Amino acid sequence: MAPVKLGLVGIGKIARDQHLPSLSRSSDFDLVAAASRNAGVDGIANFASTEEMLEAMPEIAAVSLCMPPQARHAVAAEALAKGKHVMLEKPPGATLSEVEHLAGLAASHGVSLFASWHSREAPGVGPARDWLKGQRIRKVAVTWKEDVRLWHPGQDWIFEPGGLGVFDPGINALSIVTRILPFPIWLTGAELTFPENRQAPIAASLVFAGPGGEAVEAELDFRQTGPQTWDIVVETDGGTLTLSMGGAKLSIDGEEQAMAPEAEYDGLYARFAELISAGQSDVDPSPLRHVADAFLFGRRAVTEPFFFDPPAAL
Amino acid sequence: MAPVKLGLVGIGKIARDQHLPSLSRSSDFDLVAAASRNAGVDGIANFASTEEMLEAMPEIAAVSLCMPPQARHAVAAEALAKGKHVMLEKPPGATLSEVEHLAGLAASHGVSLFASWHSREAPGVGPARDWLKGQRIRKVAVTWKEDVRLWHPGQDWIFEPGGLGVFDPGINALSIVTRILPFPIWLTGAELTFPENRQAPIAASLVFAGPGGEAVEAELDFRQTGPQTWDIVVETDGGTLTLSMGGAKLSIDGEEQAMAPEAEYDGLYARFAELISAGQSDVDPSPLRHVADAFLFGRRAVTEPFFFDPPAAL
Repeated sequence: MAPVKLGLVGIGKIARDQHLPSLSRSSDFDLVAAASRNAGVDGIANFASTEEMLEAMPEIAAVSLCMPPQARHAVAAEALAKGKHVMLEKPPGATLSEVEHLAGLAASHGVSLFASWHSREAPGVGPARDWLKGQRIRKVAVTWKEDVRLWHPGQDWIFEPGGLGVFDPGINALSIVTRILPFPIWLTGAELTFPENRQAPIAASLVFAGPGGEAVEAELDFRQTGPQTWDIVVETDGGTLTLSMGGAKLSIDGEEQAMAPEAEYDGLYARFAELISAGQSDVDPSPLRHVADAFLFGRRAVTEPFFFDPPAAL
Repeated sequence: MAPVKLGLVGIGKIARDQHLPSLSRSSDFDLVAAASRNAGVDGIANFASTEEMLEAMPEIAAVSLCMPPQARHAVAAEALAKGKHVMLEKPPGATLSEVEHLAGLAASHGVSLFASWHSREAPGVGPARDWLKGQRIRKVAVTWKEDVRLWHPGQDWIFEPGGLGVFDPGINALSIVTRILPFPIWLTGAELTFPENRQAPIAASLVFAGPGGEAVEAELDFRQTGPQTWDIVVETDGGTLTLSMGGAKLSIDGEEQAMAPEAEYDGLYARFAELISAGQSDVDPSPLRHVADAFLFGRRAVTEPFFFDPPAAL
């Protein structure tokens, strides 16, 4: 198959760190254009908006959207309605209902929509899922603690409504948990901690239950300095499985398993190409649904204000 | 068909105001037992828990759950797993994920689950839906303002996590809007106002969009004294439709339409009987999904503390 001509929308940190390197390695896609309000990509056509890009280059068959979630729905809807295949960064939208609308649009226009969850492509996730299939699971403990100043420097959108706050990384953990567990879970309790000057939580404690009385607990914190932690520990009757480094490392009863190298975004673009080729979509809103449930059902606590750059002392 | 033996769970205000009178008129159901922690129903068997009720009276084929949403999932899951048909008061749960779990349980046990939305049975709703099918819709304005002290006296659970606050009545409006509009909508902006001493909002302003640029705006307020308002006004190219009194009255361009008398809960139990007879379930989470979206995506404001009984002056 000839490479699919693709336009990349939203040239920010995640586009430069991940999408551009993966696209440069991909034989499935030919990156021909970028659309972004304030930035461009050298060596390809650049536009200020998706509308201008699709107008000027009708040969573009697919777009990949990397801008913050609050702005994604309108652009995705426009592209789908014009018959373009669409890949969405995580989370797939600012609301569940807009994601459902996009899935309907993709179906009615006969194009592929891929709501991507990059952490599901981490090398330990597939093997963890396979190993857990044969086990009786008792308890899952998620610890997801990172420094927002390090990973999202100055990105105020993350604390705006729809930016999800600590759930921006936390939803990666939920995307892994919902992939590796062989049963559904539902939230039974949550506490969300909001800085008094922000619209999204900076920390959260979550408790979920499964159908056999399994307990899933998650501790999320965006204020972690020093060592960063992205661990999922699953206790089963057949031993303890530990996914660490966001799914890059896998241990069973403390014994580290051999893993393929990390290649999350290469995996996402390979999957997007498969979906286009098969005429299918892949839209699993369950990680975002669990986050919405936490906002809906969580108890709120307020903590001290948060600033990316602490205000100068008086 | 012989009447279906039914157990009613949660004997509080809504059970006494609506469920018991409707069940007394129903030829489809035979109310044989009640389960409630603190109250009973004269003339039938009473139990302190659903578990005891279903243990003692295996002839019960269906249960109807009226307790606050926070406690509903565990009881519903138990009843479905024992092969009982289940009807849920609105909202169907405290989270979207638990509702999805119940729908899966009903399917796997071959029983009927009915997530009821009583406002959809209001007499004006069906005629409004039919009339709107032929119209080009421009704008929808929802005004849902009532006095929480009047309608939910002392019901503190309503301001607890999962109690939904002003969305407890507001979800009724959303259940009507999602029934009468011939297209999906999604939230594009929201402001939720929380009393500083409460976990759920006392007022909310919502803006939704539809696929043709339609605007749906909703103003919800739980602090309305004096006249109470439950109105939905739909502007179309063919005239203006007004549903008022929560759907009990319908006008087209100011002309009041003849309506059947209000019989929402009679309608719900008739529908539940139909579902049981047909071996089907009816679980539409979309009103709860819109509320979850509002919690997820809404901007938060804090207002003065709320007390059901204002504290005595010093």
